[in-house]
Amino acid sequence: MLSDIEIAQTAKMLPITEIAAKLNIQNDELEPYGHYKAKLSESIYDRLADEHDGKLILVTAINPTPAGEGKTTTTVGLGQGMAKLGKKAIIALREPSLGPVFGIKGGAAGGGYSQVVPMEDINLHFTGDMHAITAANNLLCAILDNHMQQGNALGIDQRRILFKRCMDMNDRALRNTIVGLGGKINGIPREDSFQITVASEIMAILCLASDLTDLKARLGSILVAYSLDGKPIYARDLQVHGAMAALLKDALKPNLVQTLENTPALMHGGPFANIAHGCNSIRATKLGLKLADYCITEAGFGSDLGAEKFMDIKCRFAGLAPSAIVLVATLRALKYNGGVPKAEVAQENVAALHRGLCNLQAHVENMRKYGVPVVVAINRFLTDTDEEIAALSHCCEELDVEFALSDVFAKGGEGATELAKKVVEACEKPSKFKLLYDEQLPIKEKVEMIAKEIYGANGVNYTAQAEKLIKEIEALGKDKLPICIAKTQYSLSDDPAKLGRPTGFTITVKDVKLSAGAGFIVVLTGDIMTMPGLPRVPAANSIDVDANGHISGLF
Amino acid sequence: MLSDIEIAQTAKMLPITEIAAKLNIQNDELEPYGHYKAKLSESIYDRLADEHDGKLILVTAINPTPAGEGKTTTTVGLGQGMAKLGKKAIIALREPSLGPVFGIKGGAAGGGYSQVVPMEDINLHFTGDMHAITAANNLLCAILDNHMQQGNALGIDQRRILFKRCMDMNDRALRNTIVGLGGKINGIPREDSFQITVASEIMAILCLASDLTDLKARLGSILVAYSLDGKPIYARDLQVHGAMAALLKDALKPNLVQTLENTPALMHGGPFANIAHGCNSIRATKLGLKLADYCITEAGFGSDLGAEKFMDIKCRFAGLAPSAIVLVATLRALKYNGGVPKAEVAQENVAALHRGLCNLQAHVENMRKYGVPVVVAINRFLTDTDEEIAALSHCCEELDVEFALSDVFAKGGEGATELAKKVVEACEKPSKFKLLYDEQLPIKEKVEMIAKEIYGANGVNYTAQAEKLIKEIEALGKDKLPICIAKTQYSLSDDPAKLGRPTGFTITVKDVKLSAGAGFIVVLTGDIMTMPGLPRVPAANSIDVDANGHISGLF
Repeated sequence: MLSDIEIAQTAKMLPITEIAAKLNIQNDELEPYGHYKAKLSESIYDRLADEHDGKLILVTAINPTPAGEGKTTTTVGLGQGMAKLGKKAIIALREPSLGPVFGIKGGAAGGGYSQVVPMEDINLHFTGDMHAITAANNLLCAILDNHMQQGNALGIDQRRILFKRCMDMNDRALRNTIVGLGGKINGIPREDSFQITVASEIMAILCLASDLTDLKARLGSILVAYSLDGKPIYARDLQVHGAMAALLKDALKPNLVQTLENTPALMHGGPFANIAHGCNSIRATKLGLKLADYCITEAGFGSDLGAEKFMDIKCRFAGLAPSAIVLVATLRALKYNGGVPKAEVAQENVAALHRGLCNLQAHVENMRKYGVPVVVAINRFLTDTDEEIAALSHCCEELDVEFALSDVFAKGGEGATELAKKVVEACEKPSKFKLLYDEQLPIKEKVEMIAKEIYGANGVNYTAQAEKLIKEIEALGKDKLPICIAKTQYSLSDDPAKLGRPTGFTITVKDVKLSAGAGFIVVLTGDIMTMPGLPRVPAANSIDVDANGHISGLF
Repeated sequence: MLSDIEIAQTAKMLPITEIAAKLNIQNDELEPYGHYKAKLSESIYDRLADEHDGKLILVTAINPTPAGEGKTTTTVGLGQGMAKLGKKAIIALREPSLGPVFGIKGGAAGGGYSQVVPMEDINLHFTGDMHAITAANNLLCAILDNHMQQGNALGIDQRRILFKRCMDMNDRALRNTIVGLGGKINGIPREDSFQITVASEIMAILCLASDLTDLKARLGSILVAYSLDGKPIYARDLQVHGAMAALLKDALKPNLVQTLENTPALMHGGPFANIAHGCNSIRATKLGLKLADYCITEAGFGSDLGAEKFMDIKCRFAGLAPSAIVLVATLRALKYNGGVPKAEVAQENVAALHRGLCNLQAHVENMRKYGVPVVVAINRFLTDTDEEIAALSHCCEELDVEFALSDVFAKGGEGATELAKKVVEACEKPSKFKLLYDEQLPIKEKVEMIAKEIYGANGVNYTAQAEKLIKEIEALGKDKLPICIAKTQYSLSDDPAKLGRPTGFTITVKDVKLSAGAGFIVVLTGDIMTMPGLPRVPAANSIDVDANGHISGLF
């Protein structure tokens, strides 16, 4: 069996100009980065403004195993499958981060015969968007520390600095630091902390901004600190949002690449799915809808986190309405949800599968609350047995939900034609898309609605700290924003050990954070790690490049 | 008068494919980054391997004022002037760093009518080389800290870690930090320090590497720490040099841009000129020599620092031999060297000029020691008076050195045709290039030779710490390497207050650092700042981008 990178390296890529031509993109709208990657210029938005929008398809998943269930692979495979049916489809994905690439998780460009390429470029620097975000983030921090050093006219309280430095790396040593040591000429000593770039609010802003003007306004609205007399300090108070926007000017342009089967793919932005909303940029998704009849996109983690935020944050801000939802399920994740340990999910266990099917049921019911047709995609693994497949099929029939087996890892688009047919049919059904909650409601009411309707909780508890922070946000007049809940992805509840479809639980809000620039309120139900660490044997140890520039060891 | 960015934004740029065509670069050798920037593929080196080399021209300078003397502007203008004469010329420059761009110094793409463009792109992210270097640097650090965290099999002593994290930013708060705080799961607490990316050894390595294989070997040879039992730990011991090389695969390819007059320019690499060697990459310079009849390049600071290292480090490693040296002088710098305060250098002062001319004399004599013909370029300012020019001309005649007035800032290539003629003539003269010292000599003998022959010192003193570090390097068997002296750029001595041509002084070596990957020994004669700070009003405050992506405030 070939590895992902070996498959990717044998791909017959078309020049990116040919991919663009398929989409009727004009030559002056394409900014090539090498021969197989490009950014799309601002002018394309004006030209296509009055074009008809295609159908938006969201790919999401049930609660995953720690290994993931192949959501990106399914998204890519579905795009390829659509093309096999003769449909004009485009894929809209998130960009990978270097941290996981060198850590334990590897890249994020799909897998097997459903990948976006050039895989190595995409997983390394791609077109530099992550680096631009890192630079904009750290410019703000440097200007902030410099402001304090140069007289601190705004009276910033170095004990109440909220905005953190970042790096696109898994580096636990940077989680808790002290900066500004070394005496008077070397700054004001204070505690600081680095996040991974994808956890930066700048990333969320880039993904939610409608254009450069909106981007700059959002950057200016970032709450960076409080002053000694308790006043909020925003990035615009430091006169740095213009320079930050200049750094992000090109990063705001969506990237065009292709799949192994030459299906066009936009990859743009990649915010965390816990402290941010976890989907690619609004600009890429909107452009995808103009460029093709079907735009297939995904959201991070399971539907309780990713899809909920996709709808209630991204679609709310962008005025988007999905025509169909693809819910990826695997037998191994269902068995895991039925109580099988991670190491044993590859073994047949129909009883455990039956116990875990309640998880699928919950996700189907949840997605139906948004008024959008649902198709379950059963992402096949070699170890799946006929009896297990039959049980799962039976469950879908009982739920009266469309489903299709998909085998995109091994077969590419050919393995997704059944799924693609079902999705095309679903898109023809009436979609009565509606948001879950009104953003004008009080913070606690919004949180309660998500907790009850989506997680199945009985209610929500708040720590004293969380109560205090909610009052602070209300005092700033910033409480009329959508909610972004940070929660474990392994359970519908806030306890990763509660698998299946837990009932009779409450969730506990421990921390609340205003992302005033992104335009949402992050509600944290646990300790969310915003700077991952490296494992004992990092992937970096195996990555190499030979004399001809041929890269190995990426996965 | 238009600002640099205003001039740059009215440039009539040719598509980079046309610039490449002028140089007979084949389509598959060009990797476009947008329409006006490109990287040159590895295959071009093979195709051109047997081509005749053009003439190499080094642009250097006398000891500068703190504002700089227009060396890059002269280099660009000279290239444009060569083209006006119908010569096939190419320029090879360093890439700018974001730190100075947002700080006090501004960008580094020339000035007035002698600039490389697209100015905004070049001064912001360009083709991502700086970001790739930052990532490779910080991957090594993350892997190092992770190694200690995961059992520390190599026994790394966290008190003796030599390799530092970096950021492409002016950020004094990162000069002295503590990382790894927060208890067992968050790493091993230790002192750390961030350098600006251009001060990283990785940058020096990128600029000195002959190819990808050599790059990887040099990366592996970086001395990162000592173990608890005093053994050296190299990057290769951490098995990370392969992944670092993979991150740098594209950064190793030279970048092609153009001047305001469409003269081709390579911009590639930009190491500090104090703790590193301060010139663009060997690969770019060598490629320039294959692509054109004249390759015009520059070295940082005055000739005592930049040109000496260009010859004794870069030319030594690359087997290059310059055909002519252009020594940039300004009246204001000569007056500054004659004792005029910085604020008054624009006023006529013939007496001070006479006092300062000894500085020019020293640089001319020094450059002649390398056996290469010298041409003095008098970079004109509006405030220069005829009487001052006459005094300078007279001095050059007495020194029997060719000279030319140049007015490249105001007139572009047209302002450098006289200079270009003199340079072409100089290139026809016999060049008997020789290096200053044999790298096989003991460290102290090499340092003494540079101090006496170039700086005019009587001798060299060493602190006890420096003596100890020299012995350590000898013990490692790494003493047979060229010397890279870090010294103030404002004086031939190690005291910035000693202007003109100081005599009767000794220099004091305070610190010694082995850059085993780059392949040189850094000898520090003062406190060299490797992480700049921001001024009271940073340039970032004025930088902005409008709704159409038009950037303002860069300079």
